[in-house]
Amino acid sequence: MSDDVTPKKAWELVVDWVEQRILSGEYTVGSHLPAERELAQRVGVSRAAVREAVRTLQASGVVRSSVGAGAAGGTTITGAPHQALTRLLRLHVALANFPTPDVTVVRVALERLSTGLASRRATADDLARMRDLLEAMDDDTLTMAEFNNHDTGLHVAIAEAAGNRLASDLTIAIRESMRLPILSGLAALERWEDARAVLRTQHHAIVDAIAAQDAPQAVACVEEHIRSAYARMTSLHP
Amino acid sequence: MSDDVTPKKAWELVVDWVEQRILSGEYTVGSHLPAERELAQRVGVSRAAVREAVRTLQASGVVRSSVGAGAAGGTTITGAPHQALTRLLRLHVALANFPTPDVTVVRVALERLSTGLASRRATADDLARMRDLLEAMDDDTLTMAEFNNHDTGLHVAIAEAAGNRLASDLTIAIRESMRLPILSGLAALERWEDARAVLRTQHHAIVDAIAAQDAPQAVACVEEHIRSAYARMTSLHP
Repeated sequence: MSDDVTPKKAWELVVDWVEQRILSGEYTVGSHLPAERELAQRVGVSRAAVREAVRTLQASGVVRSSVGAGAAGGTTITGAPHQALTRLLRLHVALANFPTPDVTVVRVALERLSTGLASRRATADDLARMRDLLEAMDDDTLTMAEFNNHDTGLHVAIAEAAGNRLASDLTIAIRESMRLPILSGLAALERWEDARAVLRTQHHAIVDAIAAQDAPQAVACVEEHIRSAYARMTSLHP
Repeated sequence: MSDDVTPKKAWELVVDWVEQRILSGEYTVGSHLPAERELAQRVGVSRAAVREAVRTLQASGVVRSSVGAGAAGGTTITGAPHQALTRLLRLHVALANFPTPDVTVVRVALERLSTGLASRRATADDLARMRDLLEAMDDDTLTMAEFNNHDTGLHVAIAEAAGNRLASDLTIAIRESMRLPILSGLAALERWEDARAVLRTQHHAIVDAIAAQDAPQAVACVEEHIRSAYARMTSLHP
């Protein structure tokens, strides 16, 4: 599955060793890594390479090291690293490693899922948060960037109301990665007032359907909203 | 958006600094990071912290350092890091940070998307690869683990035929992360021969529909396949 052609570095061998044990089920949340010296011996690399690997795994949110312990000695597999996943996904999409039309269809699939779940599970607090964002976007004095931030916030609020963290993490990461291209798209529009009116109407329709627990309607509205926004932008840059 | 309560470490400040510039669009693929000394001054941290941050960004596939250059001096934003994303996603799902029912509905949404796209775009080579895997799974002498590896391979082959790398990366990472729980589920079945016969029939139906370019049928088949497999497993461990 790898495109790598360069030989692996010593620290990468250590990361691979740990990952294999996670994927095989030998290591689960709370498992301790071997002490630094022992891990270095087992993989056949230097202790410095082990320290580099542990730092990388920490940055990925896969392990956590206790304060005061050695780099690997007090290192355990961790269970709450979803920010690391969200951050990396957002960066990769932002770096445009994926063409916008491809991102858009994935976004439609994920937002359909999140919106459908939110229609069944949104609490009164979730709905109040969505209404607050709708109201904020009704303010004609907002700059385009402010409007876009609230717009992102509304999509995040809907995803978080879905009660499915994998679905919401993926939805949010993709929506946030598109904050800038969406803002550029808005800035290129000739008539921002017209576009804004369409966006407001669509946002209200989505939230009304979620509040009415009408999942099919909410899902249809969110798909139409994303597809029409994408079509409006690509008609400017075909 | 962060749940962090501990103060950020010096290297994290550097990572944040780089990430902000990626998300704002200032840094794109090919952009050079400032030299190590300059970056240390701008963020207000030590050069050692910059080196740690660069190593972390390398491990995430976000930057690449040229051979022979200093840690940050010859460091550029990179554009082909999708293995890093896939790896991290697979690890996080494997660590069971997400409940299986939640992963299953996300998997259904992504495999519906990938299968639908594959029905429109699969080449003769893609279809031949799928047929080879179907044939391999028709062998009654395979162990359950061998069968499961081919099963994973078929879902990967369908995703790769979708021609949408974000969709296929996400689909593959989630399917691969479930290799072990799926194998455990199979091992708990009383009558493996019966379950195997159902899986074979379902796999053939999915590939037949893709080959016939019948996207609605292929999508319905893959959803039924995933949901019925999940129901069979949870009936054992309710």
